[in-house]
Amino acid sequence: MTGLQPVSSLKGKSVTSAEQFTRDDIDALMRLALLMKEKVDSGEVLHLLQGRIMTPLFFEDSSRTFSSFCAAMIRLGGSVVNFKVESSSVNKGETLSDTIRTLDSYSDVLVLRHPRTTAIEEAVAAAQHPVMNAGNGSGEHPTQALLDTLTIRAELGYVDGITIALIGDLKMGRTVHSLLKLLVRNFNIQTVFLVAPDALQMPQEVLDSLQKEITAKGVHIRRVSALTEEVMRSSDVLYATRLQKERFVASASDDAAALQSFESVKADITIDAARMQLAKEKMIVMHPLPRNEELNSNVDTDPRAAYFKQMQYGMFMRMAILYSVLA
Amino acid sequence: MTGLQPVSSLKGKSVTSAEQFTRDDIDALMRLALLMKEKVDSGEVLHLLQGRIMTPLFFEDSSRTFSSFCAAMIRLGGSVVNFKVESSSVNKGETLSDTIRTLDSYSDVLVLRHPRTTAIEEAVAAAQHPVMNAGNGSGEHPTQALLDTLTIRAELGYVDGITIALIGDLKMGRTVHSLLKLLVRNFNIQTVFLVAPDALQMPQEVLDSLQKEITAKGVHIRRVSALTEEVMRSSDVLYATRLQKERFVASASDDAAALQSFESVKADITIDAARMQLAKEKMIVMHPLPRNEELNSNVDTDPRAAYFKQMQYGMFMRMAILYSVLA
Amino acid sequence: MTGLQPVSSLKGKSVTSAEQFTRDDIDALMRLALLMKEKVDSGEVLHLLQGRIMTPLFFEDSSRTFSSFCAAMIRLGGSVVNFKVESSSVNKGETLSDTIRTLDSYSDVLVLRHPRTTAIEEAVAAAQHPVMNAGNGSGEHPTQALLDTLTIRAELGYVDGITIALIGDLKMGRTVHSLLKLLVRNFNIQTVFLVAPDALQMPQEVLDSLQKEITAKGVHIRRVSALTEEVMRSSDVLYATRLQKERFVASASDDAAALQSFESVKADITIDAARMQLAKEKMIVMHPLPRNEELNSNVDTDPRAAYFKQMQYGMFMRMAILYSVLA
Repeated sequence: MTGLQPVSSLKGKSVTSAEQFTRDDIDALMRLALLMKEKVDSGEVLHLLQGRIMTPLFFEDSSRTFSSFCAAMIRLGGSVVNFKVESSSVNKGETLSDTIRTLDSYSDVLVLRHPRTTAIEEAVAAAQHPVMNAGNGSGEHPTQALLDTLTIRAELGYVDGITIALIGDLKMGRTVHSLLKLLVRNFNIQTVFLVAPDALQMPQEVLDSLQKEITAKGVHIRRVSALTEEVMRSSDVLYATRLQKERFVASASDDAAALQSFESVKADITIDAARMQLAKEKMIVMHPLPRNEELNSNVDTDPRAAYFKQMQYGMFMRMAILYSVLA
Repeated sequence: MTGLQPVSSLKGKSVTSAEQFTRDDIDALMRLALLMKEKVDSGEVLHLLQGRIMTPLFFEDSSRTFSSFCAAMIRLGGSVVNFKVESSSVNKGETLSDTIRTLDSYSDVLVLRHPRTTAIEEAVAAAQHPVMNAGNGSGEHPTQALLDTLTIRAELGYVDGITIALIGDLKMGRTVHSLLKLLVRNFNIQTVFLVAPDALQMPQEVLDSLQKEITAKGVHIRRVSALTEEVMRSSDVLYATRLQKERFVASASDDAAALQSFESVKADITIDAARMQLAKEKMIVMHPLPRNEELNSNVDTDPRAAYFKQMQYGMFMRMAILYSVLA
Repeated sequence: MTGLQPVSSLKGKSVTSAEQFTRDDIDALMRLALLMKEKVDSGEVLHLLQGRIMTPLFFEDSSRTFSSFCAAMIRLGGSVVNFKVESSSVNKGETLSDTIRTLDSYSDVLVLRHPRTTAIEEAVAAAQHPVMNAGNGSGEHPTQALLDTLTIRAELGYVDGITIALIGDLKMGRTVHSLLKLLVRNFNIQTVFLVAPDALQMPQEVLDSLQKEITAKGVHIRRVSALTEEVMRSSDVLYATRLQKERFVASASDDAAALQSFESVKADITIDAARMQLAKEKMIVMHPLPRNEELNSNVDTDPRAAYFKQMQYGMFMRMAILYSVLA
C-alpha cells in the first residue's frame, strides 16, 4: 500500500554487528530509510507496525539513542513499553537472560544497551524475538555506523570514492571503529585520515582486521596528528568525536604536562569557522554528539554542518531496520 | 470530519507567554477546548494528531503538568517520546541548545519545563518545531493561566464582570501573577481581592505593569489580609494557592514569632466548610494543586469546589493548544 | 467485529481482590484471555481500547507487573501515560487521595501498586474511574492469582482435580496466599502440598479462612518440608516461589546455624533437572519470578517448564480484565 519494501534478508533477525550487513543490505536499507524520510516529511502517517511493541532495555545512559529508537518505532505506527532498569528485578539479582525472557514475552522486538560486550549474545540466545544492539560496551553500535553511512550518502550523494577524516579519540571510540570497518569493507574509500595524537590513535588491531580490504582496494590510510591544511582541503567528510579531558589526562603519567598537552591537542584538531574556510564547498562535518569544544558552535550555521541532520537520519535508518526486521 | 477548527493564529507557533494571546485567541481556544471535552466525554476517539510526536523535557519535577500534556497529546491521537533528563547528555555537559536540537530532530513539538527563566527563549531559538512553555522558573506558565480562565468560563458561564479573590502566597506564585495579567488585560474584571499577609502580597511591579488596564477598565484592586466576610460574600471565584511554612518562616527575622504568625495567617486565609457557608450559591473555589492545609478537604464534596475539574480542563485546554499549533 | 465479548460483570468495576470473582467470572476471563492470545498470536491488531488512557501509579518497584499491564493496554489499542511517582507531588506531601484524583481526571483506568494495604481502598474511594490493584503491601495481587490459574488451565487443560505443590516462602508470599484462596474457593483441588520449612510455612489464618471449602470439597492439605518423591510423582503443578536468604536468616536467633540450615532447606526444595525425572510426563513447573537458586536454570529447556509462558499469560489475562472493565 505504501510502496515501502522491507529489506527481506533482515526479516526476523537480530541486529548485533555492522559486520552482518552486505553491501546490498546497506544499499537497500539506505534506500528504504530515504523513502521513510520522504513519507514522514510529506506528513504521511504510517501504520506499518501498528499493534507491535518495542521494549528498550538501557542498562547504560543514552537518551539520544533511546529517543531515536522510540521515535522510529512510533513513526512506524508501533508502540513502546517503558521498561525501567532501575526499578527492575535486576536489583533482586535476576540474570540478564531471565530479564530478557520476561520482556521478550510481551514484546515484538527488544533494544538492548549494556556495558558488557557479551550481553548482546546472551540476549539473542534468551529471546525468541529479534534484539537490536544499541551499544554493547566497547563492542559495537551497528545502527550508528549505518546512520553515519546514510548521512554521507544522503548529504554528498555518494559514498564510494570519498576521502574521510576521523578525528579525536580514535582509541576508545566504538563509533569510529564501527564506521571505519563498515566503510572499508563495503565501499571504495580513497583516503582515510586518522587525525589524533599518538595516545588516542586508532588501535592497530582495527586496521589489521581490515588489512585485506585496505590492500585489495588500495585505501590510503594516513595517521596525522592535526587538522592540517591538506586534511581540510581534501576531505569530503570530517567526522569529529568527543574529546574528553579526563580520559586524555588519565592516560598520561604527568598530570600538569598532560593538561597542557591536552590544550595543544585540542587546538590542533578543533573544527571551527576559521578552519572551515579551507574546506571544499561540497563536503560535510559530522559528529555523533554530544560534543565538547572540539566542534565549535560557530560551525552550526555553516550549510556543510551535518551533525544535527545526522540525528534525523538516525531515526529514518532505525525505521528502515525495525520495519525490515518486523514486517 | 470532526468539526474541530484549530485556532489558526497559533499554527506552527511556540507558546511562551500568556501575553502572546489576544482576547480572540483566548475565546477561540476556550471554545475549542470545550468542544474537545464534549467529544472525549461522548467517547469519541480523535485521530487529529496521528503519527505526530511530542517530546516533553522536564528539567524540574512536575508530574501534574507532565501527565496533563501527555494525556492531551494521546487523546488527540498523537504519541509521546519519554525523554529522561536524568539519563541525558545534559550530564555530559551538553548545552540546552544542543539537547533541544537533538530532540527537535525527532519531534513535531517539544514541551519544556526549566528552572531558568531564559531557557524557553534559548529553546525556541534552537528548535525548528514549536516549543510549549510548561514553566520557566519564576517566569511564566501560560497554559496554566489559560486553563484557569477556561475553568472560570466553563463553570460560571462567563469571565467578564467577575469578582475574584487571589489567596495565599501572591509574592512568589508564578500562577497568580500570570492569571491576574491574563484576566485584567483581556477581560473586564470588577474587583480583585489580593488576600495575603503583607510579607506575601502581590509584587507592586505586577500591578504597575497592569496600571493602564486597571485604570481604563476601572478594576477595583483590594489588598486584604484575611478571607473576610466581605470577600467571602462577594467573590465569584476564590483562587487559593499553596501556603508553604518554610517560605514564610524564611522571609522572617525571628523564627519563633514567624511560626506563630504563620499559624495565625493560615487561620485567616484557610478555605473550609464553615467559611464556605458565607459564599454565594453560584461561585467556585479553585486551586492549582498540590494543596497544603490552606484548602480543607471538607470542601471537596461542596458542588462549588472546582479544583479537581480544573485539572480536567487543563487537559482539554492543552488539547486545544497542541491541535492548533500542529494542525 | 472481533468476536471478543467482555466479561460484563466487570464493566466499570475496580479490581481490588481475587475474592470479588465468581467461578463464572474466572471461567469467562480465562476464555477471553485465550481468545486474546489467539488474536495476538495470529498477528491481528486490536483497536478495542483506542483513545483510552491507562495511568500506572507504582509506589513500589515492580517492572514486571508494570510492563505487563502496559503491554496489555497497548495490545488492546489503548495508551499509557507514564506517571513518575518520584517526581510527583507526593514529595510535596500530597495525600494519596489528591494524587489519585489528579490522575483520575486524565485517565480511563488507573493501576496502583502501593506498599500500604489500605491504599487500594483509598484509591477506589477517590477515583471516578476503575482502579486495578497491582499489589497492596501484604494484601492482594489479584491479577497474579488469575494469571496463575489461567496458566494451569491453558497448559494442563483443566484446573479441577489437580494436585498442586506450593513451594518455598509460604509465610510472606502474597502470591501463594492469593492463589491458594482462588483455587480452593472456586475449583475442586484434590491435594495441596505445602512444601516449606516450619519457619516459612503457610500461616494458619490463611487455611482457617478456607476451612469451610476445604471440608466441604474434601481438599487434602499436606504440610511437608521437602520435595519428596511423593510430591514430585503426584503433583500436576509445582509452584515455586523465591527463597530469600536474608528473610530466612532474619527469622532465626542464631545466624550461623540459620545459614547452615538455609543451605539444607534450599537443597530440600530446589527444583532441578534431576528431581524433574521423578515428575509426571504431563505436569507443569511455575514460578512468579524473579527466581533465586530454588529453581535451577537446567529446568528451562524442559517442556514442562511453564514459568516464562506464565508471564505471557499474564499479559493476556490483563488484556481480558482491562477490556472487560473498560469496554
